[in-house]
Amino acid sequence: MGEGEGEEKMVMEISLRETYMGEGEEEGEGEGEEKMAIEISLRDFSKKLEEFAKERDWEQYHTPRNLLLAMIGEVGELSECFQWKGEVEKGLPNWEESEKEHLGEELSDVLLYLIRLSDICGIDLGDAAVRKIAKNAIKYPPKIS
Amino acid sequence: MGEGEGEEKMVMEISLRETYMGEGEEEGEGEGEEKMAIEISLRDFSKKLEEFAKERDWEQYHTPRNLLLAMIGEVGELSECFQWKGEVEKGLPNWEESEKEHLGEELSDVLLYLIRLSDICGIDLGDAAVRKIAKNAIKYPPKIS
Amino acid sequence: MGEGEGEEKMVMEISLRETYMGEGEEEGEGEGEEKMAIEISLRDFSKKLEEFAKERDWEQYHTPRNLLLAMIGEVGELSECFQWKGEVEKGLPNWEESEKEHLGEELSDVLLYLIRLSDICGIDLGDAAVRKIAKNAIKYPPKIS
Amino acid sequence: MGEGEGEEKMVMEISLRETYMGEGEEEGEGEGEEKMAIEISLRDFSKKLEEFAKERDWEQYHTPRNLLLAMIGEVGELSECFQWKGEVEKGLPNWEESEKEHLGEELSDVLLYLIRLSDICGIDLGDAAVRKIAKNAIKYPPKIS
Repeated sequence: MGEGEGEEKMVMEISLRETYMGEGEEEGEGEGEEKMAIEISLRDFSKKLEEFAKERDWEQYHTPRNLLLAMIGEVGELSECFQWKGEVEKGLPNWEESEKEHLGEELSDVLLYLIRLSDICGIDLGDAAVRKIAKNAIKYPPKIS
Repeated sequence: MGEGEGEEKMVMEISLRETYMGEGEEEGEGEGEEKMAIEISLRDFSKKLEEFAKERDWEQYHTPRNLLLAMIGEVGELSECFQWKGEVEKGLPNWEESEKEHLGEELSDVLLYLIRLSDICGIDLGDAAVRKIAKNAIKYPPKIS
Repeated sequence: MGEGEGEEKMVMEISLRETYMGEGEEEGEGEGEEKMAIEISLRDFSKKLEEFAKERDWEQYHTPRNLLLAMIGEVGELSECFQWKGEVEKGLPNWEESEKEHLGEELSDVLLYLIRLSDICGIDLGDAAVRKIAKNAIKYPPKIS
Repeated sequence: MGEGEGEEKMVMEISLRETYMGEGEEEGEGEGEEKMAIEISLRDFSKKLEEFAKERDWEQYHTPRNLLLAMIGEVGELSECFQWKGEVEKGLPNWEESEKEHLGEELSDVLLYLIRLSDICGIDLGDAAVRKIAKNAIKYPPKIS
């Protein structure tokens, strides 16, 4: 892991601290969050997004179907990243760095709306996903090698 | 595969076991696993899904555009949960328990393919999402109240 | 309902009958109905779908966002036709006849909800599409060869 | 029908003539196309789009999965038209004229990629849709009143 990558993580941690770490931050977040930047859970994202909406007076718009359609808008933008490329290889070996950066943003947009939608529906997405993996494991048993 | 990774996997498996193998599973979930669920990061899911694909010999199918289209298939199923309902209230007060369970599964399916797609593209989704939140915070400054 | 509209409906019904009620229907389609198929415009489909909804008391469900989400559900099913196939060649040379038949149904489902959505929004889809082609022709001038 | 609407249709016809009516236009289109602007069929659109791609050397990009992803990109843009609006009434009574115009464009974009995708897959979308309506009519018999 190069110098540059380390720096990037630090930037991320700083931005996390700036964004997350206003005074009066509840839930006992604190000095541990450097580690959190790496281990950030779906529930952490969920709380962050709730706060984000509150601070901007966006809660009025965050109904289930509004968020679902916003998420689908982002799925469309994600699809556009891949639309004229023909088959794409794992790891995106031929993509420009800027294209990968853009792809990361579109993947994130889908994720963030998905988390927010789940939260607004009263569904714990992390729990649900763990449960779904377990269900899939029964439905599709591993190959015996 | 290193020591550390083995340990992590154990935590994941324990949390899976706690959530699914307990008797009297549904509805009243034990307080133990709530703590475990918090620990599951996007990166944990990513590793779990990689393993899951390996054990079933599915890696050959997991190309970026295959996974993207599979994810869009799940977005379609998610949309179907909401399609004939008119406007839906936050918290889904009028939904049957079975409908909520089903919704949780569809939300999960989108999440799991999104994580897998990101991984196959070589993108750390958690990092990208943290970065995107920070970018959005600059683009949309909080309302001064 | 005027004279003209009645006549148009008859044409539609005849073309439906020709396509479906003929013996020896599948694969080898009669040359008669090819001409009929040409006659079916988006506006004919629109009228047919309105009638279809009326006869089934479905109009109450056909709000813009309900129809949009239903259409997205069908886009998901369309995506599933292509999801594990890797790159697909023009004309689908390696697809089973039953897969093509299924694909035709999913393409149709998207089309029919798209037409119905347009109609419910008060938009003439055919006119709009003609206008969009003209706009695109200006935006992307043909290559001079 | 007001003066303005008549004019708009004429503009459309002119643009159609301009776009469609280059010399060496095959298929015997001609003076009848004023009527065609109203009765334009899916097959007409299909031919027009094929021509459009040829003239721009775009055929190389028009593979089934490329077109599918492009269509999904447009479905995303269509969803964005509706995303923060809450429930929307039939006929869009509270929408600005410019919003309706934009919506018409997004509906058209989905339609045009859908038609092109069908064509590239070797599927006659109009025939398939007529067949699907007939199948649905059997699956969901009309209510007896």
